[in-house]
Amino acid sequence: MARIESTMQDVQLSLTHILRHGEYVHGKSLVLTYDEAATRTFTFADTAKRTRKLANALRSLGIQDGDRVGTFAWNNQEHLEAYFAIPCMSAVLHTLNIRLFPEQLDYVIRHADDQAIIFDATVTPLLARAPEALAGVKHLIAIGKGDFSSLGREVIDYEELISGQSDEFEWPEIEERQAAAMCYTSGTTGNPKGVVYSHRSAFLHSLAATSGSVLAMSESDRALVIVPMFHVNAWGVPYAGWFAGSDLLFPGRYLQPPYLAKMIAQERPTLANGVPTIWNDLLRLGEETELDLSSLRSITGGGSAVPRSMMEAFQERYGVPLIQGWGMTETSPLCSVALPPKGTPPEKEMDYRAKTGRLVGGVELRIVGDDGSELPKDGIAVGEFEVRGPWITGSYFGDPSPDRFHDGWLRTGDVGTLDPEGFMQITDRTKDVIKSGGEWISSVELENEIMSHPSVFEAAVVAVPDDRWQERPLACIVLNENAKSDQTELTEYLSERVSKWWLPERWAFVSEIPKTSVGKFDKKVLRAKYANDELDVITIEP
Amino acid sequence: MARIESTMQDVQLSLTHILRHGEYVHGKSLVLTYDEAATRTFTFADTAKRTRKLANALRSLGIQDGDRVGTFAWNNQEHLEAYFAIPCMSAVLHTLNIRLFPEQLDYVIRHADDQAIIFDATVTPLLARAPEALAGVKHLIAIGKGDFSSLGREVIDYEELISGQSDEFEWPEIEERQAAAMCYTSGTTGNPKGVVYSHRSAFLHSLAATSGSVLAMSESDRALVIVPMFHVNAWGVPYAGWFAGSDLLFPGRYLQPPYLAKMIAQERPTLANGVPTIWNDLLRLGEETELDLSSLRSITGGGSAVPRSMMEAFQERYGVPLIQGWGMTETSPLCSVALPPKGTPPEKEMDYRAKTGRLVGGVELRIVGDDGSELPKDGIAVGEFEVRGPWITGSYFGDPSPDRFHDGWLRTGDVGTLDPEGFMQITDRTKDVIKSGGEWISSVELENEIMSHPSVFEAAVVAVPDDRWQERPLACIVLNENAKSDQTELTEYLSERVSKWWLPERWAFVSEIPKTSVGKFDKKVLRAKYANDELDVITIEP
Repeated sequence: MARIESTMQDVQLSLTHILRHGEYVHGKSLVLTYDEAATRTFTFADTAKRTRKLANALRSLGIQDGDRVGTFAWNNQEHLEAYFAIPCMSAVLHTLNIRLFPEQLDYVIRHADDQAIIFDATVTPLLARAPEALAGVKHLIAIGKGDFSSLGREVIDYEELISGQSDEFEWPEIEERQAAAMCYTSGTTGNPKGVVYSHRSAFLHSLAATSGSVLAMSESDRALVIVPMFHVNAWGVPYAGWFAGSDLLFPGRYLQPPYLAKMIAQERPTLANGVPTIWNDLLRLGEETELDLSSLRSITGGGSAVPRSMMEAFQERYGVPLIQGWGMTETSPLCSVALPPKGTPPEKEMDYRAKTGRLVGGVELRIVGDDGSELPKDGIAVGEFEVRGPWITGSYFGDPSPDRFHDGWLRTGDVGTLDPEGFMQITDRTKDVIKSGGEWISSVELENEIMSHPSVFEAAVVAVPDDRWQERPLACIVLNENAKSDQTELTEYLSERVSKWWLPERWAFVSEIPKTSVGKFDKKVLRAKYANDELDVITIEP
Repeated sequence: MARIESTMQDVQLSLTHILRHGEYVHGKSLVLTYDEAATRTFTFADTAKRTRKLANALRSLGIQDGDRVGTFAWNNQEHLEAYFAIPCMSAVLHTLNIRLFPEQLDYVIRHADDQAIIFDATVTPLLARAPEALAGVKHLIAIGKGDFSSLGREVIDYEELISGQSDEFEWPEIEERQAAAMCYTSGTTGNPKGVVYSHRSAFLHSLAATSGSVLAMSESDRALVIVPMFHVNAWGVPYAGWFAGSDLLFPGRYLQPPYLAKMIAQERPTLANGVPTIWNDLLRLGEETELDLSSLRSITGGGSAVPRSMMEAFQERYGVPLIQGWGMTETSPLCSVALPPKGTPPEKEMDYRAKTGRLVGGVELRIVGDDGSELPKDGIAVGEFEVRGPWITGSYFGDPSPDRFHDGWLRTGDVGTLDPEGFMQITDRTKDVIKSGGEWISSVELENEIMSHPSVFEAAVVAVPDDRWQERPLACIVLNENAKSDQTELTEYLSERVSKWWLPERWAFVSEIPKTSVGKFDKKVLRAKYANDELDVITIEP
């Protein structure tokens, strides 16, 4: 007998459903955009109306099905409107990272063939750095007033554009696999690559994010969205929060710690997300002034590994769990969340929370060895992580990149272990692995241990050539202001924490670690500086 | 420009993913089957192994892709194994209701063309009542020992069947729209109709059930599954709980209140589901003996309206929120959950909880008038509920039934209002509506008000012909044991709660309300008895 079909309705999964659900069921929930002068507040119901006005406006400008429409903006009300209007009208939202280097910005606008760009007036100078690409963009739409002379062309005012429009718009039927939104990865080598999310992937990702195994988001929550909306859709929180009816609190361009502290104290979010740097900055502010973080039931950190010491500080000083999540632009991003298994005794919780994360339902993870075979999930075997699932990319926009995929799984470029309870531990990037005498040293683990020293602000460890061992670690250190420490003290500190043969012989004390446009350590630059003898390296006998 | 495709992987949504995820990430979570002698416990990891043995066994019996395999069993370990093995091997799980009338059981086994049936030895006599249908079933597999002579044929022992099998099985690739499981509706008129769930619908329903807007299920939960697994897949909790890693606690055949009370006190579930009758029984037991319900963070009631008085009793006596959910076999069943909106003051919470429910994300609801046009969601307009979504049926197995659908929406046969915050209030079944002088009287609301009287055990209200008003309500009452009340007192009580013109003139005090095979009031029988003058009706002048 052959397989038979179900009798279920063939309803397509879409962001349009999420938009309508939030508007109807949670119409009184709020979108807040912080501003030093006066926080702006709209209900979901009013936001949905403005979304329909925007869709009418974009249609009137000639935006068609499948056209890419860029955004170049902070986290704010208008950006959220674009998040819904563009995909739901069957166009494609292309969130442009305002921190891209000019040549990258130029590349991605051209590569995506953006037909219009909605941008914040406050970042006009950054946008103006890609004049050639902008020449091919039909419409520039500015949020807020400003001096647009650097753009040398007509700019449409967002508010004027939508003000004359009808707040009725018949959203087209969506096919769930059609493109909804795209983000480019900011690879440290080569040109950025475009990841195109579908309505289906965004729907599934949103639902997964609200599940009890992840954030358990509900209408009772208020989510402070610090992760930029131009960075993997702010980890999907704007869509998930809208679906669940959680109030959405956007910081606009006010990302400095005193503003964030004020926002948290005033607006009382229950959830917040951000990269470790943000949380580190907030902790430091807390050493000078009193913080009221009492409204937060959980904060999420990701983008790079969250040091255990930072999680401990939040827990001990403020009673707030800082939970690590892991994912990539290619993975929408939700793949793992470091929530301890049930029954974990309190004194063991941090051991689990310090791991990279626990696999989330909907996604599959495996590790493979150099020969491409799957390795055991025993917490010991080390291999490259590969990931598979309905919100994981299977190619890149206009660029299939077969070397990045393996039998339909995405090769993450991250290396580490998977344990029998679904916890992953990333120990390195494939390209950052240090292979010393045939054995692997984890640059990330060394960095984390060094960064747990109170005098250290940041530490990056890279592989450098070694005559005897083929490769050995070089530790590049940024000390805290006024802190005093040196290679001898740090070696002693480290020797209690890692194997003796991991201890770096080479140390460089630097004023800053070079970073990529999304704030990750740019180890390629460090390796080049070392090769060109541009670092002041101290060599010791450990 | 035409729509463009995303770059997302085309991974199919399936119960196989849920099975694998629970086994790997939550392998230590537990499945408990209560037994008076000794509760049986298996880990998820061991359960998954047994599932693969069962798949091998069924394959060895000749079960092929698309074959229907019936179950006729209580909630227990083996039933859960069948829940996964049958759909994941690409066959179709057909849960047979052990409470079906013999002619219905005969009909559904034949109609589904079940190739094998897995049944509990304890319900052998019930199964034996459909001998002609069983003649067409190739294999009967018994869980537990018993006397099978009434079946007059060979019976395979479940444990023996799987014991010799390999615990490795390569689950086939699933296409998400293929049939996974089926349930027949127990319509009060005509033959039962089959609803066929897909892997896709089961996956989406499971994820939705774990969301923060519904049950927020996580690994920390222990779910007591009282709703039968032969009744709309126990409202989807076995799949959702397995996905989230919640311990699953099955009561087997021990559904009497003292057993349930013991199970709750001993095994400390955090969640439980059941029909109002179950919760009513438990409340009554609590009036005689002390109950320990302290482990429960929430219990879910559905299948029929949960009286407000019952919710108040659970809240006041035990501090346990009894939350109403609403759905049907046709809707998988999750459609709405009566959780109050955020910011509801405590004294208003029960007003929201007493409504039928609040629309759940993923599903759309509308009400339509007699002419088929959509009515406003204003909490006032009354119409038939229609529902649409990826886990809602669009036809019946081998029976498209176009009269049950309207432009792709399922006609629910329920009548009521939708309010601006997504709350639905069912006031009646289309066929039970009482139309008095051109105005609608809600039989359900009358029943609820009458049942809130302390002397009343059950009350059913049906329309009866009336010379002056076309139709008027007849109230059929079952009093509590030893309770004394009469039509005069009940009328006085009611008159403070409903409009004067709703007050029934006709009262019948009966020993029980006739019920359908799933325990719902069988109003068709009451109307027939009235028409045949078989009821002892008192008529008063209100």
